Amino acid sequence: MQQSSRRGWRVVSLVAALSAGAAAAGAQDAAVRAAIDANNKKFSAAAARGDAAALGALYTTDAEALPPNSDVVKGRAAIEAMFKGIFDSGVTAIDLTAAEVEAHGLVASEVGTYVVKVTDGTVVDRGKYVVVWKKVGGQWLLHRDIWNTSQPAPPKP
Amino acid sequence: MQQSSRRGWRVVSLVAALSAGAAAAGAQDAAVRAAIDANNKKFSAAAARGDAAALGALYTTDAEALPPNSDVVKGRAAIEAMFKGIFDSGVTAIDLTAAEVEAHGLVASEVGTYVVKVTDGTVVDRGKYVVVWKKVGGQWLLHRDIWNTSQPAPPKP
Repeated sequence: MQQSSRRGWRVVSLVAALSAGAAAAGAQDAAVRAAIDANNKKFSAAAARGDAAALGALYTTDAEALPPNSDVVKGRAAIEAMFKGIFDSGVTAIDLTAAEVEAHGLVASEVGTYVVKVTDGTVVDRGKYVVVWKKVGGQWLLHRDIWNTSQPAPPKP
Repeated sequence: MQQSSRRGWRVVSLVAALSAGAAAAGAQDAAVRAAIDANNKKFSAAAARGDAAALGALYTTDAEALPPNSDVVKGRAAIEAMFKGIFDSGVTAIDLTAAEVEAHGLVASEVGTYVVKVTDGTVVDRGKYVVVWKKVGGQWLLHRDIWNTSQPAPPKP
């Protein structure tokens, strides 16, 4: 009877743990989405300041950015240099909008859209991206970042 | 003493469980990597046959492909039509090579490179991609798929 009671308790505990887990997963998704939305605002604010170092700090130390017309850009220093180049080319705004965020423990995937503007406010590019985020030391950081334009291909020369 | 012994047992059990979990995670990563490598071979084989339907079947029903110079392509039917258009343009090979695969339960992220060829074997594009995979009904399927070229931008017209 004691054995049976123990088993019963274990089953109830397991169900409770799984339910709590499921509820926590939902709550976690919302929390992760909020954290990533906040990071995207930091990203856009840093871009508006032309602050390549602040952008680099939003990435993991072993992050990879995968820009069009380029090989993979590996590590924070290289990513910072990439952004410096982008700002030197006249870009004054990179606005990000998450379309979806899915969290899986300490990793999350995001699909979103971007708008790039230059000094006079002209939109020079609109496109989409996928980011794999990692939570490192309690902070969500961009870990893999790839994007491409949604604008038509230019006519071939 | 009995209490202390129980505590000791619990600590040992916890460490054993964590170690088993870590070992299982490593084994799972290798298994997922193998499954994704196998799927990439199926992908390339279907592309070599110009078989858009077989390619579509490698994606989740609610998959999204994010091609350059296009809006997001949503769902299997639209993805199949996208590949049909690619084959109609003369593409006869899309070869994929995974550079890394990270698994997180029923989701995995992959970074890789692609090579696209046309009828006479000419390479018309080389680039990179990020795929978010989902395991559905025991099968790993492409869920989010984005890529871009690594070739230099064409000169502006």
